[in-house]
Amino acid sequence: MRIYGAIEGGGTKFVCGLGTEDGTIRETVTIPTTTPEETMGKAMAYFADKGIEAIGIGTFGPIDVNVASATYGTVTSTPKPYWSGYDIVGHVKRELNVPVGFDTDVNAAALGELLWGAAQGLKSCLYLTVGTGIGAGAVAEGKLVHGLTHPEMGHILVRRHSEDQYAGGCPFHGDCLEGLASGPAIEARWGTKASELGEEHAAWRMQSYYIAQALVNYTLILSPERLILGGGVMHQSHLFPLIREQVQGLLNGYVLHPALHEDIHSYIVKPGLGDKAGISGALALAVKAAEA
Amino acid sequence: MRIYGAIEGGGTKFVCGLGTEDGTIRETVTIPTTTPEETMGKAMAYFADKGIEAIGIGTFGPIDVNVASATYGTVTSTPKPYWSGYDIVGHVKRELNVPVGFDTDVNAAALGELLWGAAQGLKSCLYLTVGTGIGAGAVAEGKLVHGLTHPEMGHILVRRHSEDQYAGGCPFHGDCLEGLASGPAIEARWGTKASELGEEHAAWRMQSYYIAQALVNYTLILSPERLILGGGVMHQSHLFPLIREQVQGLLNGYVLHPALHEDIHSYIVKPGLGDKAGISGALALAVKAAEA
Repeated sequence: MRIYGAIEGGGTKFVCGLGTEDGTIRETVTIPTTTPEETMGKAMAYFADKGIEAIGIGTFGPIDVNVASATYGTVTSTPKPYWSGYDIVGHVKRELNVPVGFDTDVNAAALGELLWGAAQGLKSCLYLTVGTGIGAGAVAEGKLVHGLTHPEMGHILVRRHSEDQYAGGCPFHGDCLEGLASGPAIEARWGTKASELGEEHAAWRMQSYYIAQALVNYTLILSPERLILGGGVMHQSHLFPLIREQVQGLLNGYVLHPALHEDIHSYIVKPGLGDKAGISGALALAVKAAEA
Repeated sequence: MRIYGAIEGGGTKFVCGLGTEDGTIRETVTIPTTTPEETMGKAMAYFADKGIEAIGIGTFGPIDVNVASATYGTVTSTPKPYWSGYDIVGHVKRELNVPVGFDTDVNAAALGELLWGAAQGLKSCLYLTVGTGIGAGAVAEGKLVHGLTHPEMGHILVRRHSEDQYAGGCPFHGDCLEGLASGPAIEARWGTKASELGEEHAAWRMQSYYIAQALVNYTLILSPERLILGGGVMHQSHLFPLIREQVQGLLNGYVLHPALHEDIHSYIVKPGLGDKAGISGALALAVKAAEA
């Protein structure tokens, strides 16, 4: 069976792994995110003797995913030191000389969930991660969504909750979705880490109001066949029923589809791949790159 | 040259036309929208002897656009009398026996603009109409966006303008985008028809705030390569610079792409097909249906 390489590039660590085209991850190693040269150097050393067919990279952004662009494959402008302008795809091609699939971490996860996870057999889905940051990727009509750039769904504008006194923590927009509903925003608002707030805390109803607004807008704009919610904050399983209830309240019966009514428990779901959605998504990018 | 049929189905009239695959509309006739039997009967009589290769229908919704569905091709649930459940595609196939393309009016317009209008040569665009209602269609990665159903982008949630006293006119959501920014909403808020408000009226800055919010969310979620704004309210050309300015203000430099900065005048634009975007879009659906 052919072996593919996968890299899940995050702000604190890069997870590198090997897998097969049925979605199985055979092994992973974790490399701390420092400078691109050091981090990618270690990653390339890991893959060098593995005989991989192709490699997929799902990474933090913003990145240039436009294959027609002169700067395709690079990190564009990140506040992260050293990484702005770094040519990830160029480096990997030179070192490994195999096809490279390249996309955002969340687009990769959406593709992984479509192939092997909670959206198997569908032609569309949306994967939202709520953690240190908020981001989402989507598949529509069987293809990952790109255009001018890749989506930046974590920064959409939402309505403030009437009881929310927190100004919002996004350096660009203050109280956009990420500014109000990321893990750090929850901690800044309530003075306690999200993971330490009890299930009955008022934080969760407010949180579900923000996430539900985002899901309503994603659904009205993209109409994905499944909404998959991952990331550290979504480990709070009690959020799911709250979110489903608020999505229905905000839609108020507008879109007549069973998925938004009696079947909403199987429409708004956890990742089928659990915390492996990211690395599996990178594997999915590798498999697609080999096919292309 | 082959001749294709096109139907732009609206709430007050159905425009039927003939065209060719270069996008030329050769002639049109207008039929008032009454009962489906009467309206579609007249439309079918018009096309009966025209020797068309295929027909495209872009219509008001909600409609079932899922080809795998038992009710594909029907109007689903509309407050419009007589039309709920009406099988448009079935009727046309029985009468004309040619391939039928079927989508929302706004998805059709987006495709028409991509093939022959303001988004020629691109792989993605979004077409927003602001008139009696608000709706949008989109092409992503070269394909019209569908999933669970078709998008319903006119009903996204927006933040209220701090000076807006109007409750909003959407029967489902009150103050969603359509509830706050459609032509009837403008008239209800200010007590004057939108077309009669002077260019300096405060209405327009408020209006541009709502439209800009929608465009920001569409851009962050879909990342279309061009935003095309049509419909009666957008005949107010002075809205365009106001909207562009507010889009930039709301994004606050977040997405680094020339289209959102120095080139925004060619990113947020009028329809290249003018008021023919709808019927041209239906023609585009016909051409695609013949190819399929």
